[in-house]
Amino acid sequence: MKKYVYAFEDGKKEMKSLLGGKGANLAEMSKIGLPVPPGFTITTEACIHYIEIGEKLEDSLKESIFKHLEDLEDEIGKDFGDVNDPLLVSVRSGAVISMPGMMDTILNLGLNDKSVEGLAKKTSNPRFAYDSYRRLIQMFGNVVLGIPGYEFDNYLERKKEKKDYDNDTDLTVDDLKDIIQDFKALIKNRKDIEFPQKPEEQLIMAVKAVFSSWNNARAISYRNHNDIPHDLGTAVNVQTMVFGNIGDNSGTGVAFTRNPATGENKVFGEFLLNAQGEDVVAGIRTPKDISELNNLMPEVYEEFMEVTETLEQHYKDMQDIEFTIQEGDLYLLQTRTGKRTADAAVNIAVDMEEEGLIDKETAVMRIDPEDISQLLHPNFKEDELEKADLLATGLAASPGAATGKIYFNSEDAAEAAADGEDVILVRKETSPEDIEGMVKSNGILTSRGGMTSHAAVVARGMGKCCVAGAGDIQVDESTRQFFVDDRVFNEGDYISLNGSTGEVYAGVVETTEAHLTDNFKKLMIWSDEYRDMGVYTNADTPKDAQVAIDFGAEGIGLCRTEHMFFDSERIMSVREMIVADSKKKRKKALEKLFPYQKEDFKGIFKVMQDKNVTVRLLDPPLHEFLPQNERDIKNLAEELTISVEELRRIISDLEEMNPMLGHRGCRLGISYPEIYKMQVRAIISAAIEVKEEEGYEVKADIMIPLVGTDRELEIIREKAEEVAEGLLEDTDTDIYYTIGTMIEIPRAALLADRIAKYADFFSFGTNDLTQMTYGFSRDDAGKFIGQYLEQEIFAKDPFQVLDQDGVGKLIENTVKLGREEKPELKIGICGEHGGEPSSIEFCHKNNLNYVSCSPYRVPIARLAAAQSAIKNN
Amino acid sequence: MKKYVYAFEDGKKEMKSLLGGKGANLAEMSKIGLPVPPGFTITTEACIHYIEIGEKLEDSLKESIFKHLEDLEDEIGKDFGDVNDPLLVSVRSGAVISMPGMMDTILNLGLNDKSVEGLAKKTSNPRFAYDSYRRLIQMFGNVVLGIPGYEFDNYLERKKEKKDYDNDTDLTVDDLKDIIQDFKALIKNRKDIEFPQKPEEQLIMAVKAVFSSWNNARAISYRNHNDIPHDLGTAVNVQTMVFGNIGDNSGTGVAFTRNPATGENKVFGEFLLNAQGEDVVAGIRTPKDISELNNLMPEVYEEFMEVTETLEQHYKDMQDIEFTIQEGDLYLLQTRTGKRTADAAVNIAVDMEEEGLIDKETAVMRIDPEDISQLLHPNFKEDELEKADLLATGLAASPGAATGKIYFNSEDAAEAAADGEDVILVRKETSPEDIEGMVKSNGILTSRGGMTSHAAVVARGMGKCCVAGAGDIQVDESTRQFFVDDRVFNEGDYISLNGSTGEVYAGVVETTEAHLTDNFKKLMIWSDEYRDMGVYTNADTPKDAQVAIDFGAEGIGLCRTEHMFFDSERIMSVREMIVADSKKKRKKALEKLFPYQKEDFKGIFKVMQDKNVTVRLLDPPLHEFLPQNERDIKNLAEELTISVEELRRIISDLEEMNPMLGHRGCRLGISYPEIYKMQVRAIISAAIEVKEEEGYEVKADIMIPLVGTDRELEIIREKAEEVAEGLLEDTDTDIYYTIGTMIEIPRAALLADRIAKYADFFSFGTNDLTQMTYGFSRDDAGKFIGQYLEQEIFAKDPFQVLDQDGVGKLIENTVKLGREEKPELKIGICGEHGGEPSSIEFCHKNNLNYVSCSPYRVPIARLAAAQSAIKNN
Repeated sequence: MKKYVYAFEDGKKEMKSLLGGKGANLAEMSKIGLPVPPGFTITTEACIHYIEIGEKLEDSLKESIFKHLEDLEDEIGKDFGDVNDPLLVSVRSGAVISMPGMMDTILNLGLNDKSVEGLAKKTSNPRFAYDSYRRLIQMFGNVVLGIPGYEFDNYLERKKEKKDYDNDTDLTVDDLKDIIQDFKALIKNRKDIEFPQKPEEQLIMAVKAVFSSWNNARAISYRNHNDIPHDLGTAVNVQTMVFGNIGDNSGTGVAFTRNPATGENKVFGEFLLNAQGEDVVAGIRTPKDISELNNLMPEVYEEFMEVTETLEQHYKDMQDIEFTIQEGDLYLLQTRTGKRTADAAVNIAVDMEEEGLIDKETAVMRIDPEDISQLLHPNFKEDELEKADLLATGLAASPGAATGKIYFNSEDAAEAAADGEDVILVRKETSPEDIEGMVKSNGILTSRGGMTSHAAVVARGMGKCCVAGAGDIQVDESTRQFFVDDRVFNEGDYISLNGSTGEVYAGVVETTEAHLTDNFKKLMIWSDEYRDMGVYTNADTPKDAQVAIDFGAEGIGLCRTEHMFFDSERIMSVREMIVADSKKKRKKALEKLFPYQKEDFKGIFKVMQDKNVTVRLLDPPLHEFLPQNERDIKNLAEELTISVEELRRIISDLEEMNPMLGHRGCRLGISYPEIYKMQVRAIISAAIEVKEEEGYEVKADIMIPLVGTDRELEIIREKAEEVAEGLLEDTDTDIYYTIGTMIEIPRAALLADRIAKYADFFSFGTNDLTQMTYGFSRDDAGKFIGQYLEQEIFAKDPFQVLDQDGVGKLIENTVKLGREEKPELKIGICGEHGGEPSSIEFCHKNNLNYVSCSPYRVPIARLAAAQSAIKNN
Repeated sequence: MKKYVYAFEDGKKEMKSLLGGKGANLAEMSKIGLPVPPGFTITTEACIHYIEIGEKLEDSLKESIFKHLEDLEDEIGKDFGDVNDPLLVSVRSGAVISMPGMMDTILNLGLNDKSVEGLAKKTSNPRFAYDSYRRLIQMFGNVVLGIPGYEFDNYLERKKEKKDYDNDTDLTVDDLKDIIQDFKALIKNRKDIEFPQKPEEQLIMAVKAVFSSWNNARAISYRNHNDIPHDLGTAVNVQTMVFGNIGDNSGTGVAFTRNPATGENKVFGEFLLNAQGEDVVAGIRTPKDISELNNLMPEVYEEFMEVTETLEQHYKDMQDIEFTIQEGDLYLLQTRTGKRTADAAVNIAVDMEEEGLIDKETAVMRIDPEDISQLLHPNFKEDELEKADLLATGLAASPGAATGKIYFNSEDAAEAAADGEDVILVRKETSPEDIEGMVKSNGILTSRGGMTSHAAVVARGMGKCCVAGAGDIQVDESTRQFFVDDRVFNEGDYISLNGSTGEVYAGVVETTEAHLTDNFKKLMIWSDEYRDMGVYTNADTPKDAQVAIDFGAEGIGLCRTEHMFFDSERIMSVREMIVADSKKKRKKALEKLFPYQKEDFKGIFKVMQDKNVTVRLLDPPLHEFLPQNERDIKNLAEELTISVEELRRIISDLEEMNPMLGHRGCRLGISYPEIYKMQVRAIISAAIEVKEEEGYEVKADIMIPLVGTDRELEIIREKAEEVAEGLLEDTDTDIYYTIGTMIEIPRAALLADRIAKYADFFSFGTNDLTQMTYGFSRDDAGKFIGQYLEQEIFAKDPFQVLDQDGVGKLIENTVKLGREEKPELKIGICGEHGGEPSSIEFCHKNNLNYVSCSPYRVPIARLAAAQSAIKNN
């Protein structure tokens, strides 16, 4: 027969998949000589076998369990079921991956009507004995027999009320005896069985209950949702009971080997005297700080400090420990890797490397890249949040915390900000016209749109707090109000946004500032040592570019040119260009725009110096730039000396049913080649001038958006080269420039070999590629994406986490075909996914040359790329 | 050395790729003993070789040419270059596929200053001789030396003006001698060479000119555009001259062996006495009907009739023949398959089968499926069209011809039609709200949208004439006017639409009716004998379904349920359902809709009897159904007892940035399962009742639109089955029903194996699939698709002709993965491409089970499917 039961001393921490997490660690602690109450583990394989044969415990397994129980009896010197001095055990589940919904713990197993009396006598503590028995029956009734916990709790509460007690501890021995009788009656009544008096029967029932709970509905659903295989099974740990509630030389507590909030290298924990584990959690008594143990029981304290030292040295990580002190003796009941804040994680990883406990590689792997985000942005003060007035929860679109007065349009917001007010811009959804208001606001709130809506993308680029798609908020821009249920908020009212959680609060909530520690910087430098994929940034302005450089960006992977068009100085010329009814007029308007564009690019090139700057030519549909309100329309009509009606007709003619799928991207470059020509001229001229003025070896990568056929790229490339070569010849200069394309249309991905013929580089625009592949718009998906996550149609929002199955298939195909045609093809990603760790790993596995993300996510990308290199190289 | 030159008697019609079309047919006619002036052909391989070695004629090839020339001299008994009685030849190009832009013809080659005098003497017809020489120099100067033709023409015109002549024939011998001098001077002046006096030199230069013209810009561009390989090359035909212009016992003409307009089995042609080929084309004299030849030259006529008979028997198809009569002797200069109208094509094919000339398979292959369309719809009268006032040309969105008064909204159009007026509905673009007006109009004109815009799709479904995306027409719906340049058209003005060409005319143009002949029906039946792919139809109403059945549809591949929602009786309930803020209210509204939906389906099931009916559950975004104008909004608000403001807020909340990519299709089914449940209940209930009432074995295929993930289909399928099974159990009935999905989202195509797990059938929605794969909306693509065709980015509009490279790759992948998972998976297509012949062939090659198209395209699809089966099986 297979070995289904392991004494703690026979296991070790490497046997986690057989013994479960808890069992493996109990075994490991035993092995290295730490004071662990003896016990044994029934393996996960036993669980699987139990399920396979129809939820039965085979006799051979039972025998093995009882054999190990006998060994326990021998070791402890007590007998299971001894009426005078019984051996008591706890029974705990221990899966490989901890999982809500599964059966957890039964304490004091082995007591019965007889042995409780013996225990009372033996300990001279009848209250302790009967309370232990009461707890056993209650836990057994609940977790083994499946009677809802509240039925026991209600009874207990009624009893206390009747007796006018405040606490459980007020219950007398007689009360407890009453309760035991009533609990037994409750079990009889509900389940038509007697509470088992044979300890062996208790044990077997408990083990079966743990095994069966592996397949309860909640556990299955959790595993489905988290992609955990269903054939792992759970182990069961049977362990000698120790008691922290026998008197004031007993106690129980939890501790972290370092401070989980700051990472400080000092044991952090608390304990209660004369208590059992659940009492600490119940929060009736206030636990004491671990340092006080030094005063109360200095030897125990000293031993405990040694234990924490031993555990860290052994596990090479900060540990979260449960312990019990029974009559002056320390026992360890559990150890596991401790959860920690991002700040603590960074500090602990760096400290441990410097202490020689771990190497750099391990330090880099220790940090969850996603957690870093909170280090880069302000946050609300914890205590402030607790009392804050939560209005709604939207999408956590751009992290950080912001508070301010609400304004409902860009102009009002900018004006109020100019008057020194803290401003939150509230819109149904934002458009490029709102840029100025967004720049001036502390935060942005929209009631529509998803994680890659305009508001979200722009806010992340700016590192500005944004909550998007808060559907419970009804925005009425015309009356400058928003509604949440029956509450009304008017212009000027204060609200607060948590862009890291999506929460929206009424009123002011105070914030704390972000800070980048030296340890953080060290960790980034270490990451770069492992990383083999470039990290670029998406930046449209010199300011954004500088932020990204400071965060370690190695180039610009996406410089959008359209935001530049909204500047008030030039928007009129942009509009003139759009409504032009002849090439000549359009060229004239473009001529006015040229010097601005050139200066834009010069500014960026100066910041980026010798680094690659990938400039995307004009992408959005032209009508986005047209005036929407009466006054602007009138002004433009006057400027153009056409009638308002004529202008209206032009505007209405430019409107599109589905702008996302409309006349945009390279389609504009095909229809109006003069626009792209002007942009290329501005890029190359700027490069020439910056090289001349500053001596930088500017690297301009010209990127054509929305290509779906090779011919589009062929035509545009030819014209762009003509402009560029002409300028270089005229000035007798040599400038590094390349011409490449976004891969964001499924067709381009399907036919990437053809496209590659005309491309020096590819850059995946995964926002659009996701939209087209799924067939839904990021602006509109907000309406159903919540339900899709709820009904588990999506495991994750595909605009946040790359859909590796579907969109990923296109990416794989593109890389394969593209490099078949052109082996040295440079390939990157500049969609939002370029800053998301699991997507970055996917890019790395697919041999992309670089990822590009918003400036504030550059550190996350550096870390994620390093981790992927460590994992996969 | 390779054989580069073939005498006519050494070739045959099967050698078309070597001898070109013309050469092969000349050889064939010689071979079967028809009177063809002797000659030889220089092969296409010689042309390719000539190009490969840098446009040179090798000496060996020249020798071979002159050797054949000698043979000609021997046969004819005249010498090339003989000053007294010279052998004259024509030199003509003859590519495998005829191609504009290539050099065409040089006549009278071999004449020079000396031999022209001999010819004059010999024929006693100096005018004939000098005119022949004049023509040679003119043609040589133009086509061999590249001097623009108008330079010669201008000179000729000036000469005639000066002499006050009307016709070329007025020119005297002296005039012609002057002209010859001046033409030679023109050549000297432009090209700095003398017109070559050596006949051999003339010949070699002419051959080289033909070969070189294979690679001129226009020919290359034509080949690129038509996917003709560049390495075919062209042949050159050198043929003894015969003259139809020697006197009144000479002549020239063209004839078809049957009537190319009607197909009548009677020679159809015309001729001119005393004329050369180009005179017939010039149109100065009116040619005579071929029957008159019987009176003028009965023997020649009789011989000619025998020739036509021989040619048809030999070629097994109607022939288009060029002939010349030289002094009473008949010569054939060319024969080729004759072009014909659709009507003629059908009649000729069926007649020839019945005459035993061809078999059924050949008859079926003879018809271009696309041509059939004109047989199914009314057309404008030819002579009316010539004088019509063309306003603009849009897309030929739905064939047929229509004339009527213009109205600018659905209500006005319906009202006017009810008053008995002929109505044309004019809109910027139509939406489902316009259905009633569309039904009542004779034709529909839109200024926006492409071949698969709403207007186009719906009109084709109705078999109603539609011109879409006529961008030159500026529609102002508010003032009820449209503008074309500076012309204004007001409500009530007449216009006429040609939906087969996209032309829009001012005023009334008279039409002729469509008629389906017996021959047409026969051809359809023959087609069905070969076809192995099903032909279904897209039909939403019993009326459409009946039309399709009459055209031979074998099932419904797409029954849209949304058009049913717009009926005035039920739109209020639809709106009630949409604005419902609770499931309860929504269910209440759906309850009202249920009986209507059930009746809709019953009506269709009754028409379709035992045939498959594929019903697509609700697809468009809900806001399409909401009221747009003030009055409707007010009415709805009253009906719902909510305020107008509240309703407006709801409507604005439902609006989407990109409705095509929004909350539609199965996403509605996920968010509001009660809608799909009601529809499934209506379908199954209707099937049960029709089975009971009529005894038909109804076949209901329930189709879920816009699926992108397997889980969507899994969830919806489960709910639909629950409803269906419940009903069948309750009524104790057995109804055939299946549940399948559209494949119209690229992701579904990429992961078709997963989707297939939950699908009984797939149906490609190639409209949406094309939109998503290319990333452009059919409603908005109109703005640039014209430029894309012009710049040859697209060979064809991908909404009309399936993009086999890109979208086709997804289709191939879907079929492969889908059938790997489920080998018996039924797969069809219900996008617009289901009625387009080349797309139908693609579907057949990819083993689809059926295509589905609009009723009026069913015959086209039947024929195309038959042809694909014949070609590919």
